[in-house]
Amino acid sequence: MSADRYERVMLAAVDGPTGLAVVEGLAKSFPDFARYIVEFPFGDIYARKGLGLRERELATVAALCALGHALPQLRVHAHAALHVGCSPSEVVEVVMQMAVYAGFPAALNGLAVVREVFAESGIALPVGSD
Amino acid sequence: MSADRYERVMLAAVDGPTGLAVVEGLAKSFPDFARYIVEFPFGDIYARKGLGLRERELATVAALCALGHALPQLRVHAHAALHVGCSPSEVVEVVMQMAVYAGFPAALNGLAVVREVFAESGIALPVGSD
Amino acid sequence: MSADRYERVMLAAVDGPTGLAVVEGLAKSFPDFARYIVEFPFGDIYARKGLGLRERELATVAALCALGHALPQLRVHAHAALHVGCSPSEVVEVVMQMAVYAGFPAALNGLAVVREVFAESGIALPVGSD
Amino acid sequence: MSADRYERVMLAAVDGPTGLAVVEGLAKSFPDFARYIVEFPFGDIYARKGLGLRERELATVAALCALGHALPQLRVHAHAALHVGCSPSEVVEVVMQMAVYAGFPAALNGLAVVREVFAESGIALPVGSD
Amino acid sequence: MSADRYERVMLAAVDGPTGLAVVEGLAKSFPDFARYIVEFPFGDIYARKGLGLRERELATVAALCALGHALPQLRVHAHAALHVGCSPSEVVEVVMQMAVYAGFPAALNGLAVVREVFAESGIALPVGSD
Amino acid sequence: MSADRYERVMLAAVDGPTGLAVVEGLAKSFPDFARYIVEFPFGDIYARKGLGLRERELATVAALCALGHALPQLRVHAHAALHVGCSPSEVVEVVMQMAVYAGFPAALNGLAVVREVFAESGIALPVGSD
Repeated sequence: MSADRYERVMLAAVDGPTGLAVVEGLAKSFPDFARYIVEFPFGDIYARKGLGLRERELATVAALCALGHALPQLRVHAHAALHVGCSPSEVVEVVMQMAVYAGFPAALNGLAVVREVFAESGIALPVGSD
Repeated sequence: MSADRYERVMLAAVDGPTGLAVVEGLAKSFPDFARYIVEFPFGDIYARKGLGLRERELATVAALCALGHALPQLRVHAHAALHVGCSPSEVVEVVMQMAVYAGFPAALNGLAVVREVFAESGIALPVGSD
Repeated sequence: MSADRYERVMLAAVDGPTGLAVVEGLAKSFPDFARYIVEFPFGDIYARKGLGLRERELATVAALCALGHALPQLRVHAHAALHVGCSPSEVVEVVMQMAVYAGFPAALNGLAVVREVFAESGIALPVGSD
Repeated sequence: MSADRYERVMLAAVDGPTGLAVVEGLAKSFPDFARYIVEFPFGDIYARKGLGLRERELATVAALCALGHALPQLRVHAHAALHVGCSPSEVVEVVMQMAVYAGFPAALNGLAVVREVFAESGIALPVGSD
Repeated sequence: MSADRYERVMLAAVDGPTGLAVVEGLAKSFPDFARYIVEFPFGDIYARKGLGLRERELATVAALCALGHALPQLRVHAHAALHVGCSPSEVVEVVMQMAVYAGFPAALNGLAVVREVFAESGIALPVGSD
Repeated sequence: MSADRYERVMLAAVDGPTGLAVVEGLAKSFPDFARYIVEFPFGDIYARKGLGLRERELATVAALCALGHALPQLRVHAHAALHVGCSPSEVVEVVMQMAVYAGFPAALNGLAVVREVFAESGIALPVGSD
């Protein structure tokens, strides 16, 4: 398997169909950038040892929610977190926790994304922990 | 044990001596705010079930690094992450991963904080995973 | 009156029906978070002496506009500012002033929200001061 | 020609019809702010010597993409960059480069705006450099 | 009195000696920019009717604290807020309130600035409201 | 010449000794990350056709100034901009222009960095254009 194929397979394994669709849509208009987004994040970072995939996705959900301007990417990674085995409660907890560090608006906008992702995934709200 | 003491004990358990020192310094000048910072983050959020303390601290490290303006707090939570049992590699990996989502400058500034925290904690760099 | 009811009454007094609707919608999916958003901001912060409600809302409008990612919340607090007695001119002036500190894009996006809120509230633009 | 007319002409010369439409829409609701947005950015900054208009627009595209909350303004300035003679490749390259400094989400959201602007301008994607 | 002198007098009246020192230091290296920072914020914005100077300074304190990267400017405007008649409690309350909208790190970094400004101004902490 | 050496040579060509020193310091503590920061930004992005190196550095200066939290990196890239042939005026103009898009605080903090970089480089201020 070529290095490139390996990275695409890994992207599919991590992010699931939502992430793969983003990259494929991107590749039509910006093919080199579609390659970079597979190579650096997935070929270099997510493939590293030293941190589990579940922890990587929870950290990404935290950062994307805290940044405030990254809601389309939060949507992809909320799906990805569920895809690698995070529980719905874990995803909700991370987003709620962002109220402490990035303020209530960032957390509220993040929870609105989580609600959509859970509806698409057939996950009922409220989850057990909340 | 009063609710207030419970929260302070929990803060000590989570963040360790670095976090406790922040709150005690704050209490001299802004006593109500020192109480809020114990009550809402620790009494309400960190005490919740549904997400482990290790995952909570890694998510916080991710967010504080991505925000860019929160390096003093990243310092406290890099210590806290080690305190609740995250490995040095896990802390480094989360901060490196932020290059993908918040850019290289945020990750570089985060790694400079990690280097200081590890020096204070007697942890040698590079860690095994890097 | 229970502490909880007191806080909800205070939220209604401050933010008016728009803020109350946000909390009630949130409570269906994230009931604990709906409680936090009443308790900490309203029970702890807005209930404090030392700053008037009008000044609190103008400061919140300033911050939400400057942050850039908090337009849904700016919409709620532009309504809230009018609700606690700020004049339409005061709201417009605060948002325009943000061009100095957060740049013209943040102010322009804030003014677009103000225009919607004023249309919903039957307030004609331009206001007298502009 | 009055100073005011000079600035409006310069705005039209720099930003083209898209920028002019923004200012004219703004002038109905916030006439003083519409004047400021012509006077300070165009009368003071863009009129200065020491940096070419092409470089000014590329710098603006970079900043608006990196900020994350300024996508409506990025749309105006992607048009403006083409209007002052930047090539489609130059606009794409600047936005892609922001992945390094502001993270992949900011660059991805910027590329989505570029795709819309190029469609409106009849520019096919992928461009030659990508 | 020339328009320029009028604006400098107004800057002195609003921001007091701290703000004036910033502009004079700037003028040696970047004279045009020193002029812009007087003309647009003070000549155009702060001189407007429709919002009181006290409210303008509290809104600025809120925004500079929420932005996170503007601590040197927060220092100037915490002094300015006191200079135009805001009480120490009002300044503390606005900064504490930012924990709700921009997160605890932004508020904590803001309170550290307030502590320095109050020490320079001979204001004891804690203030009455806290 | 190996691909890796090629990228390091290119980094030296673009960023000059300041950038090279950053990477070499980083390599002692975080060797993999030092490699990524050469590979993705320099091997992938700066090596691309379609945008000149001068324009790339001016866009980077704009973004790093606008972000607000990236002053150490702005310092490296202000040096780099001079190194690839941008004039001192061009660097000053880009940073001043950021007042429009990211607010005066971001521009002021950027100009303070420029002043340091110019002092290190023996460039007198004010430059001709200002």
